Amino acid sequence: MQHSTSQSIIALMTDFGLGDGDVGVMKGVMLSIAPAVHLIDLTHDVAPQNVLSGAWILGASYRYFPEGTVFTCVVDPGVGSTRRAIALHVGKWFFVGPDNGLFSFVLAEQPFHEAVRLTNPMYQLPQVSSTFHGRDIFAPAAAHIARGVSLAEFGPCVDPADLIRLEQTHFERQGELIKASIIHVDNFGNLITSIPLSAVPDLFSSPAIQLSFPANNAVITERRRFFADTDTHDMTEVRPFIYGDSSGYVGVAVRNGNASRTLGVGYGIAITLTQ
Amino acid sequence: MQHSTSQSIIALMTDFGLGDGDVGVMKGVMLSIAPAVHLIDLTHDVAPQNVLSGAWILGASYRYFPEGTVFTCVVDPGVGSTRRAIALHVGKWFFVGPDNGLFSFVLAEQPFHEAVRLTNPMYQLPQVSSTFHGRDIFAPAAAHIARGVSLAEFGPCVDPADLIRLEQTHFERQGELIKASIIHVDNFGNLITSIPLSAVPDLFSSPAIQLSFPANNAVITERRRFFADTDTHDMTEVRPFIYGDSSGYVGVAVRNGNASRTLGVGYGIAITLTQ
Amino acid sequence: MQHSTSQSIIALMTDFGLGDGDVGVMKGVMLSIAPAVHLIDLTHDVAPQNVLSGAWILGASYRYFPEGTVFTCVVDPGVGSTRRAIALHVGKWFFVGPDNGLFSFVLAEQPFHEAVRLTNPMYQLPQVSSTFHGRDIFAPAAAHIARGVSLAEFGPCVDPADLIRLEQTHFERQGELIKASIIHVDNFGNLITSIPLSAVPDLFSSPAIQLSFPANNAVITERRRFFADTDTHDMTEVRPFIYGDSSGYVGVAVRNGNASRTLGVGYGIAITLTQ
Repeated sequence: MQHSTSQSIIALMTDFGLGDGDVGVMKGVMLSIAPAVHLIDLTHDVAPQNVLSGAWILGASYRYFPEGTVFTCVVDPGVGSTRRAIALHVGKWFFVGPDNGLFSFVLAEQPFHEAVRLTNPMYQLPQVSSTFHGRDIFAPAAAHIARGVSLAEFGPCVDPADLIRLEQTHFERQGELIKASIIHVDNFGNLITSIPLSAVPDLFSSPAIQLSFPANNAVITERRRFFADTDTHDMTEVRPFIYGDSSGYVGVAVRNGNASRTLGVGYGIAITLTQ
Repeated sequence: MQHSTSQSIIALMTDFGLGDGDVGVMKGVMLSIAPAVHLIDLTHDVAPQNVLSGAWILGASYRYFPEGTVFTCVVDPGVGSTRRAIALHVGKWFFVGPDNGLFSFVLAEQPFHEAVRLTNPMYQLPQVSSTFHGRDIFAPAAAHIARGVSLAEFGPCVDPADLIRLEQTHFERQGELIKASIIHVDNFGNLITSIPLSAVPDLFSSPAIQLSFPANNAVITERRRFFADTDTHDMTEVRPFIYGDSSGYVGVAVRNGNASRTLGVGYGIAITLTQ
Repeated sequence: MQHSTSQSIIALMTDFGLGDGDVGVMKGVMLSIAPAVHLIDLTHDVAPQNVLSGAWILGASYRYFPEGTVFTCVVDPGVGSTRRAIALHVGKWFFVGPDNGLFSFVLAEQPFHEAVRLTNPMYQLPQVSSTFHGRDIFAPAAAHIARGVSLAEFGPCVDPADLIRLEQTHFERQGELIKASIIHVDNFGNLITSIPLSAVPDLFSSPAIQLSFPANNAVITERRRFFADTDTHDMTEVRPFIYGDSSGYVGVAVRNGNASRTLGVGYGIAITLTQ
C-alpha cells in the first residue's frame, strides 16, 4: 500500500484527558518523525482504563475516516506488563495500540490483512519508559506508518487468531427478551445500549416494545424517531424515550435533558428489551 | 469567490463535548471530502442545546478568522424536526448549521450575501440519520464549500428575512437603568453581561455606576481596567468588580477567583446597571 | 535561524479551557498571519492561573517537539499589569508568553540564546485589550516568529538574569530525608512529586524507602516498576504505591484507581521521602 506523506492522517484516541500535556507530547513525537502528517483527535476522554468503552467509540467512528488513516489508540491498563504492543492493517485503515481488546469491533467488522508486534527498537524512542508507551512506542510507530514504513519492519507477525478480543456478550436473545447492557453514555447523558438497531426491525412499529432496567425497575415504552418528535410543547418534560442512535444502536434519551441522570443509571448497567 | 483548497479553513463549534468521538467523526467526514483542509476547533463545549450561548461565542470569535473560513456550527435541539439546515455567506465568511438563531450576531453585524438550504443529497452522506446531522449533512456541506463548491449547488435560496434570529433583548434602557442579563460564564467564572461597552461610555469615569443582581440583592460598584488593577496585595481577596471584557461587553470578575461561584449566579440571570 | 513557513509548528498551552472559544480565536489570529502553520494543542487545562503547574507541564513536554517549534504559553494572572510580555529563543525552540516564571524549567535546562520584550505594535493586533493578551499580543507574535521574523524585530532585548524564575524549592535534603511537594496531579489522579528520579538512584533497591504525607500521616512503602507489577489479581485493590513517572519524577499511584482521591491529597501538599 502506497500513501503520500503529504496527505497522511493520524487519528488519536486515548483516555489521557487533555489536562496533562501527554497528548501534546505524543503529537510532538509524531511531528518530529512525520512533519507533514495531519493529526486529528478522535477523543481523549475515553472513560479511564475502560477498554470496552474505547473499543466502542473506535468502532462507531473509524469507518468515517479516509483510507490509510492511522488510528493511534491508547487505553492501556496493562502498560508495562507483558501485554503486546501491536499494529494492524484491517479494512482500509491502520491501527496502533495495545493488544487488549481495543480493536475488537474493528476486527469483527472488517477484512483482516496483517498484524505485527511493535518490537523493533529502530521505531521506538531511544528510552522506553514503563508507563508511557503512547509517547515511546505507539506515537513513533504511527508516525513511521504514516511515512510509509511497511508493517513487517516493526516486528514479528501476529496470528489474527491470537489477537485479544473482548468477550462480546453484546446482547442475548431469550425468547421474546433481549438481555443487553448500557455500553456508552454520551455527552448529553443519552444511554447507548448493546442492541444493534438491525436486531430489532420492529422497534418503531411494534406496540409491545418495552425496555426495562432491572436495577431500579424503570420501564420505558415511548419511542421517538428524533428528539423533537413529540406532541407536547412542554420544554420541561423529562420522560425518557427509546430512539435509534446515530451509531446504529438502540438508545435511551430525555429531550433537553440527561437520561443517565434522570434514570440514575450509567455505564455497564443491565437492560432487558421485551418485544 | 475563489479559494484554493490548500489554504481552506474549517472552524468547528458544537455542544458535543470531546468525549464521544462525534467531533472526530465529523472531521473524518470532512477530510474524506477535502483532504487538504485545515480543521480548527472553536469550541465543542457550548452549554448543551443552548443556542443563545453558541450564538454569543460565535459572535465573539468569527471576525478573528481569515477570509473564507467555513464555520460549521452545531447546537441543534431541533435536529430531525422541520428546522432547516442552511449555509450562509455573510461578511467574508461562510457559515453552516441549523437555522435556529445560531447566526443571529453574525447576521446583525455583517453584510449579507447569500443563504441556501442544504437539501441536495449529492452533498450529504448516503444515509442521513435523524439525530446526527453534524456528521451526515453539515460536515459534508462544509467540506464541499471549502473545496470551492458554490452555495447555489446545495439547494434553494433562503430569503434573509426568513432566517431565524433570536429575540435579542440584549439590554433595555429604562431611564437611568439598563436592564440586561448574564449571557455567558467563561472558564474562569467571569460573568459576561449583554451590555456592550459602547453603550456605557462613562463606565470607568462615572462615580454613580452600580451593577445589581435582583436575584440575591448583590450590588457591585468597584471597577477595574484590568485584573491586577488594585491597591491591595491580598491574594485572597474575593471582592467582585466590574471590568470591560475583551469580547466587548461589560463583565464581572473576582481576581484570582470565580465570580459566578462567589456571587452564586450564572447563565441567564437578570442584572440592572444604574448609571 | 531559518525555517520554512510550510513546516512551522506552533504549540499552544493555556489555562483558558476549551469552553469559551478563546483558544479558537487565538488560532484564527495565528492563521490570519501565518496560513500554513501547523497548530498543536499542548493543553488548555493548566490549573487556572497556576504558573508553577504550567511551568511544570511545559517542562515535561517541550523536548519532544521538533526544532523551531514556537510554544505559545498563556497562564497569566498579571495580565494588564506591568509584567512583561516576552519571546525567548532557548535550546532549539521559541517560547512566547508572560515573563512570570512560566519558562523556569526551560531556562534551567537549555542553553539561552535570546530574549526580547514584545513591545513593537507592528506585531500586535491594532487594538490591545487589557485582559486578552493571548489574542492581541502573544498569538500575533508567535505567528510572526513562525513566519520567520527575527526576535530582534519585536522589541528591546531582555537580560536573561532579569527573567522571572520561580523559586524552585523543588526538593531539599535534610540528612536522610528529602522534603518536597506534590507539583502535579495527572488525569488519572497520579501524584507527581518534585523529586527527580535521578536524585534517588536506589528508589527501587533500598529496603528503607518510605514516602510520607505529614498532612494526614499517610505512609507509602510499596514500590512498583510499572502499574501492572503486582502479585495480586484483585482488581479492586486500592493500595497506593511509589513509581517512576514517565516525566522523570517520583510519583504515587493506585492501580485502576485515583491516588489523589484515595489519599485525600492534591496539588502543592508537602511530602517527605525517607531513604
